[in-house]
Amino acid sequence: MIETIQWNADGVVMIDQTRLPAEETYVTCRSYGEVADAIRTMIIRGAPAIGVAAAMGVAIGIAQAAPADLDAQFERICAELAATRPTAVNLFWGIERMKQLYASIRHLPVEQIRERLIAEAKLVREEDIEINRAIGRHGAPLVPDGRTVLTHCNAGALATAGYGTALGVVRAAVEAGKHIDVYADETRPFLQGARLTVWELQHDGIPATLITDNMAGYFLHAGKIGCVIVGADRIAANGDVANKIGTYGVAVLAKENNVPFYVAAPVSTLDLTLPDGTHIPIEERGEAEVTHLQGIRVAPEGTAVRNPAFDVTPNRYVTAIITEHGVARAPYLESLRELDGRDRLDEPILAGL
Amino acid sequence: MIETIQWNADGVVMIDQTRLPAEETYVTCRSYGEVADAIRTMIIRGAPAIGVAAAMGVAIGIAQAAPADLDAQFERICAELAATRPTAVNLFWGIERMKQLYASIRHLPVEQIRERLIAEAKLVREEDIEINRAIGRHGAPLVPDGRTVLTHCNAGALATAGYGTALGVVRAAVEAGKHIDVYADETRPFLQGARLTVWELQHDGIPATLITDNMAGYFLHAGKIGCVIVGADRIAANGDVANKIGTYGVAVLAKENNVPFYVAAPVSTLDLTLPDGTHIPIEERGEAEVTHLQGIRVAPEGTAVRNPAFDVTPNRYVTAIITEHGVARAPYLESLRELDGRDRLDEPILAGL
Repeated sequence: MIETIQWNADGVVMIDQTRLPAEETYVTCRSYGEVADAIRTMIIRGAPAIGVAAAMGVAIGIAQAAPADLDAQFERICAELAATRPTAVNLFWGIERMKQLYASIRHLPVEQIRERLIAEAKLVREEDIEINRAIGRHGAPLVPDGRTVLTHCNAGALATAGYGTALGVVRAAVEAGKHIDVYADETRPFLQGARLTVWELQHDGIPATLITDNMAGYFLHAGKIGCVIVGADRIAANGDVANKIGTYGVAVLAKENNVPFYVAAPVSTLDLTLPDGTHIPIEERGEAEVTHLQGIRVAPEGTAVRNPAFDVTPNRYVTAIITEHGVARAPYLESLRELDGRDRLDEPILAGL
Repeated sequence: MIETIQWNADGVVMIDQTRLPAEETYVTCRSYGEVADAIRTMIIRGAPAIGVAAAMGVAIGIAQAAPADLDAQFERICAELAATRPTAVNLFWGIERMKQLYASIRHLPVEQIRERLIAEAKLVREEDIEINRAIGRHGAPLVPDGRTVLTHCNAGALATAGYGTALGVVRAAVEAGKHIDVYADETRPFLQGARLTVWELQHDGIPATLITDNMAGYFLHAGKIGCVIVGADRIAANGDVANKIGTYGVAVLAKENNVPFYVAAPVSTLDLTLPDGTHIPIEERGEAEVTHLQGIRVAPEGTAVRNPAFDVTPNRYVTAIITEHGVARAPYLESLRELDGRDRLDEPILAGL
């Protein structure tokens, strides 16, 4: 079992995703500021994992806060964590969940507030794993047996508290006895596919083949791919999907070649306040991610760079969105609203919580 | 002026494209075997440049061959050079041109044969530069003024004897007074875009912005790109285009977003013996190009890899093919045959030769 993020007596422990696969090292964040830095520098990344990190960041912040003027400190902690990355809505969802709890317990003694926030943050983590297993169960029947799944970026155990969204569907399909393998886009510039997806699939003994991003079209056109499954960072009310840069290109190429394109994400990734994907803020990251590889400059000095970290895939390219509440299909305006409204606790799959 | 390949008293001198942009070093190939190695290891690359290298390889091979049994040696030299890389037809075109000359002069004294072959190889180089200028003149009117040109890989001076095909069109548009800039796909795995295209555009003062391959769709969708221009490694009779891996994806994304997709190539890139692109052999290169970057491993040990170096873009995605004889449009079966048949020497643009 890959432990992406955990709470322990010293702080918030994360596997350092900037150093995988060369080194399997763990970072302990001992303050909310260190959690914010870890999110910003992508020691932890992946929308659901960022949601868990944000919740734990709030909890550690209040655990260390002076008892006086707790409300103002709570706001400051939440604001700093919210300012780390703009695109993945799970970050704001995680903070909002902690805010709602805080509002209901702020009259309690500070020691109790601290305990309750820590317990909630740990619960967010545990629930995330259960949610991913539910996504896997809903998605596994969609994966064609005996075929190859193409994925982009890492929507695996490392992008979540465990098990994964897109790779959770792959894992569930394998557990259900399907014979599948995965083609992993390397996912420039941060190489989440080459470094993280291949690593965690090797870990589980699921056959994986690494390709560069620009080879996806070749294999889709060649009939090699049975379906595409990716994660998401934010999904608008109409089913437009923000995800790692390059997802849009894969989606267009999948549709052009009649290959199903699935998005796997928890309902915490839905942002039904946005009518469509044009309203999703797209983070632009630093130039060095593009001009350098592993710290070595590849482009000439003085090269101008663009580095949008995400793109938006319009809903017409999305065959289905797989959530822990079930599978949504077009028209998404209705299906997503319906899935979002389902009471999670009614789901027998979550009865264990 | 960037000198990609030249003949001098010591042998065939090439700028080492595996070391750019960090180092501007030149390699002298002193035998046909060294020329073959330089093609195989991509010290020189780009379809037209490979054609020139092949012709020079034949010339240096015969220059060093023993006078006895010259026919057999000629065949062996041609066979070794032909076995270096399979996709770019210009390689075989360059060898074939030398074969035809040899057949017509093999009765001459060996010293004269040597001189004639060397003169022919030098002529192939000089003609290539003139051809690229003609491609530029035909293509420049197609480039929208005040917009951004997207290109993939390097179809520039470094991919030819000079001036470039796709970048030749860009250069000609700039020389014609158009205000344009270039977005360059980095072009994994070999990074021809990041390393070579940006470098040579900087050299000429043409504004260039580097993006990763998977960002092309984002900028095409955002309306940022006025047109796409790429080179080609082989073009079938029906207009299907083999070019650097990832070209197909860019072409599909361009069409999806109503952006013109142009291919710039000399008629020596046409292979009218092939009815369509499914017959074009696609080179698969070694795993280390994908698992390593600048010699540093990024993917885990034991990672399975696919590494097709080219893909085929079906003709329906190609807005026009720009050659030194003029611009071909669909239906390509007729337009390419017509362009191929035009007598090059009738073209006033080549009157200087």
